[in-house]
Amino acid sequence: MFWFVVMLDDFVKLFHGSGGQLTDKLIERLFVNKVKFHNVFGGVGLRDFDDGVSIPIGDFELVMTSDGYTVDPIFFPGGDIGILAVCGTINDLAVMGAKPIAIMDNIIVEEGFPMVDLELVVNSMIKTAEENGVAILGGDFKVMPRGKLDKIVIGMTGIGLVSRGKIITDRGIKCGDKIIVTGSIGEHEIALMSVREGLSFIGEIKSDVAAIHNVIEAALEVGGVHAAKDPTRGGLAGVLNVWASKCNVGIWIDESKIPIRPEVKAVCEMMGLDPLYLACEGRAVLSVNPAYAEDILNRIREFRGCESANIIGEVRSSPKGYVIMETVIGGSRIVPPPIGSQLPRIC
Amino acid sequence: MFWFVVMLDDFVKLFHGSGGQLTDKLIERLFVNKVKFHNVFGGVGLRDFDDGVSIPIGDFELVMTSDGYTVDPIFFPGGDIGILAVCGTINDLAVMGAKPIAIMDNIIVEEGFPMVDLELVVNSMIKTAEENGVAILGGDFKVMPRGKLDKIVIGMTGIGLVSRGKIITDRGIKCGDKIIVTGSIGEHEIALMSVREGLSFIGEIKSDVAAIHNVIEAALEVGGVHAAKDPTRGGLAGVLNVWASKCNVGIWIDESKIPIRPEVKAVCEMMGLDPLYLACEGRAVLSVNPAYAEDILNRIREFRGCESANIIGEVRSSPKGYVIMETVIGGSRIVPPPIGSQLPRIC
Repeated sequence: MFWFVVMLDDFVKLFHGSGGQLTDKLIERLFVNKVKFHNVFGGVGLRDFDDGVSIPIGDFELVMTSDGYTVDPIFFPGGDIGILAVCGTINDLAVMGAKPIAIMDNIIVEEGFPMVDLELVVNSMIKTAEENGVAILGGDFKVMPRGKLDKIVIGMTGIGLVSRGKIITDRGIKCGDKIIVTGSIGEHEIALMSVREGLSFIGEIKSDVAAIHNVIEAALEVGGVHAAKDPTRGGLAGVLNVWASKCNVGIWIDESKIPIRPEVKAVCEMMGLDPLYLACEGRAVLSVNPAYAEDILNRIREFRGCESANIIGEVRSSPKGYVIMETVIGGSRIVPPPIGSQLPRIC
Repeated sequence: MFWFVVMLDDFVKLFHGSGGQLTDKLIERLFVNKVKFHNVFGGVGLRDFDDGVSIPIGDFELVMTSDGYTVDPIFFPGGDIGILAVCGTINDLAVMGAKPIAIMDNIIVEEGFPMVDLELVVNSMIKTAEENGVAILGGDFKVMPRGKLDKIVIGMTGIGLVSRGKIITDRGIKCGDKIIVTGSIGEHEIALMSVREGLSFIGEIKSDVAAIHNVIEAALEVGGVHAAKDPTRGGLAGVLNVWASKCNVGIWIDESKIPIRPEVKAVCEMMGLDPLYLACEGRAVLSVNPAYAEDILNRIREFRGCESANIIGEVRSSPKGYVIMETVIGGSRIVPPPIGSQLPRIC
């Protein structure tokens, strides 16, 4: 039996790229314990496992993030891989408290990829960057021979600036904080699933993909934001578990307060999915000082797409490292961290 | 016939990713003419088509570069995709005059990729970064289902710093400059070719892949460096043509002065390849003030691998936009810019 276990671990599996615990474990094994220079000038680095990293320079902290986008299909209800790559990058900067200023892309396409699709994707990137005041500084373009890559992947790096000392990291969480989610959850993953699994009967559910830096900026203006994170791979459950575990706190959420659209709920019930683990691409989760929570919520709700934002729970001193959900039927249950993913290639 | 031409242009071809004129034309069509925000704070941006971009911050200019690495095979004589990705990134920063300080990676692998190979690649990345004093700040890890990607691609972003006003760009070239190449050319591409085409009879030619920031730093210390560039895709001919065209000058090179190892020359003659177009991954081409040229050359030759560095030509006012080679048989010929590439997936 030991032999079988070794065999299983000998090859990369889909779940290694899920963004959940198994990804973290792999990254830890491959990188974290081996890399000596893991940050620069005391900024946020490899061992912080945050949404981005930072380099303090003069009065500023330069925030950076880099991700590979492999979404399938590349055109989906509500967006495409170009919009997704730019929004995902902007959002990773925004949740660190940074103002996104520029991006660089590296695009790899398969030989024979339709030029018209490439133009559509690039136009989406340009339009999304422009709408959000983000410069496209440059990048790289490579072609792989036919059959060596499925259509297109995009590597996207983002750069943002934040005043020295104003960066927001996962470590900012405090007991007593209220947890806010900026809109209904799960639409991105369900939109992809509806195309990939041919679930036309559910009607068109659009991805929530959007840049949310303006929403986060508004919350920061109100004050009292201790941490922010976008619930992509691993969903809301992923974000809350990272926080609970990193800050050694208990996060209590109230099922009845979590905004989920009825169509998403219906698909989840039909397919046996837990909406807490579904990826969003235009939402943030905030941990905020309770004295500011109502004001932040009201400010956020003014933004288009954030009308259903809500306070869904709070941070307590125990049970340390756990996320607990008080369910609509009156009980409470542990929400475990995501292990694999429900669907590969969601971002 | 018109219909046929349209058809040809409807799909992405391998040569679009060659890094030559056709790549530039595609990038121009897709991006350059459409992007409004193409630089930040007046730094180097999209329209400069340089090795990297820059963002002026305080007393510094932050230099960045981002590339996708798709090399095939991933392990080759003299290196692997991990070493290549880190060196290529460091070199792109160095030729802008920046001190490389950090990298971020995004790795995409195929499901079923051997874990041992992944560890080898990551260990190479870590070792190469460490040897060059470059921090690994973080990144992303994704898995694509079996058959959707050939093994592994790595997106790599690098960040470097240079004092305000000290950045080196292609535009720095001046008439009268001497052209220096820091070592023998073409070994990287021939090493890949020897594996891919099964040319075992040529003996093992190793890739020249190496980080060359220390070589460039040494040249900068001597002074008089006006421009620098690493001759990767498109080779020496590519670099010189970019310079001639951007600065509207004539670049004259002397065939007898170009360092090429006899094994590389032999393979080129056998296979009908022009060594001027072969990719290097551990060389730089410099355009320098003639008064400093000999001193720079002597300083460079002290570095391991740079013993055959040489002054190979000079910059003249004409013929504007052209590269001319005085051949060993006494004539002179135009060296045209690279169009396609001799081999796909060389970096």
